[in-house]
Amino acid sequence: MDIVKELLAGSRLALARAITAVENEDDTAIAIMQQIYANTGKAYVIGITGPPGAGKSTLTDRLAKEFRRQGKTIGIIAVDPTSPFSGGAILGDRIRMNELTLDEGVFIRSMGTRGSLGGLSGKTADVVKIMDASGKDVVFVETVGVGQSEVDIVKAADTTVVVLVPGLGDDIQAIKAGILEIGDIFVINKADRDGADRLNNELAMMLDLNSSKSDWRPPINKTVATAGTGIEELLVTIEEHINHMKNSDGIANRRRARTRDELLFLLEERIKRHVAAQIAASGRLDSLVDSIEQRERDPYSVVAELLNSFLR
Amino acid sequence: MDIVKELLAGSRLALARAITAVENEDDTAIAIMQQIYANTGKAYVIGITGPPGAGKSTLTDRLAKEFRRQGKTIGIIAVDPTSPFSGGAILGDRIRMNELTLDEGVFIRSMGTRGSLGGLSGKTADVVKIMDASGKDVVFVETVGVGQSEVDIVKAADTTVVVLVPGLGDDIQAIKAGILEIGDIFVINKADRDGADRLNNELAMMLDLNSSKSDWRPPINKTVATAGTGIEELLVTIEEHINHMKNSDGIANRRRARTRDELLFLLEERIKRHVAAQIAASGRLDSLVDSIEQRERDPYSVVAELLNSFLR
Repeated sequence: MDIVKELLAGSRLALARAITAVENEDDTAIAIMQQIYANTGKAYVIGITGPPGAGKSTLTDRLAKEFRRQGKTIGIIAVDPTSPFSGGAILGDRIRMNELTLDEGVFIRSMGTRGSLGGLSGKTADVVKIMDASGKDVVFVETVGVGQSEVDIVKAADTTVVVLVPGLGDDIQAIKAGILEIGDIFVINKADRDGADRLNNELAMMLDLNSSKSDWRPPINKTVATAGTGIEELLVTIEEHINHMKNSDGIANRRRARTRDELLFLLEERIKRHVAAQIAASGRLDSLVDSIEQRERDPYSVVAELLNSFLR
Repeated sequence: MDIVKELLAGSRLALARAITAVENEDDTAIAIMQQIYANTGKAYVIGITGPPGAGKSTLTDRLAKEFRRQGKTIGIIAVDPTSPFSGGAILGDRIRMNELTLDEGVFIRSMGTRGSLGGLSGKTADVVKIMDASGKDVVFVETVGVGQSEVDIVKAADTTVVVLVPGLGDDIQAIKAGILEIGDIFVINKADRDGADRLNNELAMMLDLNSSKSDWRPPINKTVATAGTGIEELLVTIEEHINHMKNSDGIANRRRARTRDELLFLLEERIKRHVAAQIAASGRLDSLVDSIEQRERDPYSVVAELLNSFLR
């Protein structure tokens, strides 16, 4: 396919088109993914997650600039599971009208949910692969942290940075088990605000309680991203984690687990489609739903019957 | 089963045990659901959703008391998709240490996610059915609104109330397409705060833009739930929507669509389990993952091969 050739040669237009094909689930999407697959696995993927208003975009932009100074090319995928909007219009343009968008070495794309969350995390993983195949050295996946969704989305990352901020309150901050477990590095952004030390102490305590058998103890960095304070130190911490991952089995294990999850997820998706198509073709769904609605049958026995007709 | 008999006879203990069985995916869960199914469909289900801190619990409690005054029995399911906790300990006890918990006509249960969000919405639908079968007249499903998850969860509702609050900021408030579409009634709670009128105007404008072909125009109510202000008016609005739903095809259509969704969801779940078991039994997963990790194969062709071996 021409688009694949151009993508692998580094064309920005082909990159944008390939991403759109995946987002829209175009007929060409699977063929593109299949053909680029052998060229993936080179980019380093950094996840940036945390509650709304924590300053993730600013932090990501600052980090991207630091990596640019080292000559690395960058992809940024800004994912908002609570937004129905995708493309460049919302996150990308509004917030990022800065020099990054003029840099040919940086490609920014925002993604929202157009359907299921499961679909969004799968598509994010595909967009990471597309950016990877197009030759980006570092790919950022930045996502609003609102529960299970961001946990699924940052599974695509080799290093996950969790961004917290003082004063958002327990209700929203949600220093929860899930967030603690996915963070390789914690950042207290807006660290010049009241409550930064308290948050630091609480977080350190929770990390102590949560410490697993892993040989990496997630460090806590403080930043004021808007002022650029603490960014270089954060970069050093990220590079330490990258080295740790590369010098241990960490990265191989994490990527293997990810490949396994993605394979099973893809299989489930295909099965769902197959089943939906079969049921539609059988023309029986309406009468089955009727019989359940009338309480003549229960859904569990209907499913048992359908399973027998679909599965070997 | 004894537990089903006791549940249908109104036993609180059997009710609690049946819910726990569903939450834990006990072996007995499907049998319970299957046996109670014919006794479901009587309760009226009201969804209450909105951002963290909007005052949903207080509002739900106030509404529950109004329905109690009419002699109706109540079930309350408090769902937090961002919490790993379930049972009575977190939401239920902390917030609801009030006269409601002493009322035999009210049964409160909180649910968190112990795994996938998809699982949580399916389990919530099952718990609604259990409360329904146990004879509750009105079942509230109260869920923290954080994106797709609450949209899935309130699908179990006949009437959905979206609770907003002035001053949370655009970032968190998220008056988004998804929220607008699921709301039958909007409530501006804490309406004595600055910004209530502005929120009201913005919301009215968005509802105008969003107005569909439906003959129900979602009204906006103002409340101060902690003070009890506006609760009676909200109850009247809810009763108007209930009447609207019952006097039109609304409720039949909504329940039919729900039955259809639930049937397909259940089918997908069963197929996933079947496939996971088959793959585990085949012992091939590790070598397939290896070949993909080595880029000898791509995941898409592997999935195509697996599909052929599992599906008719």
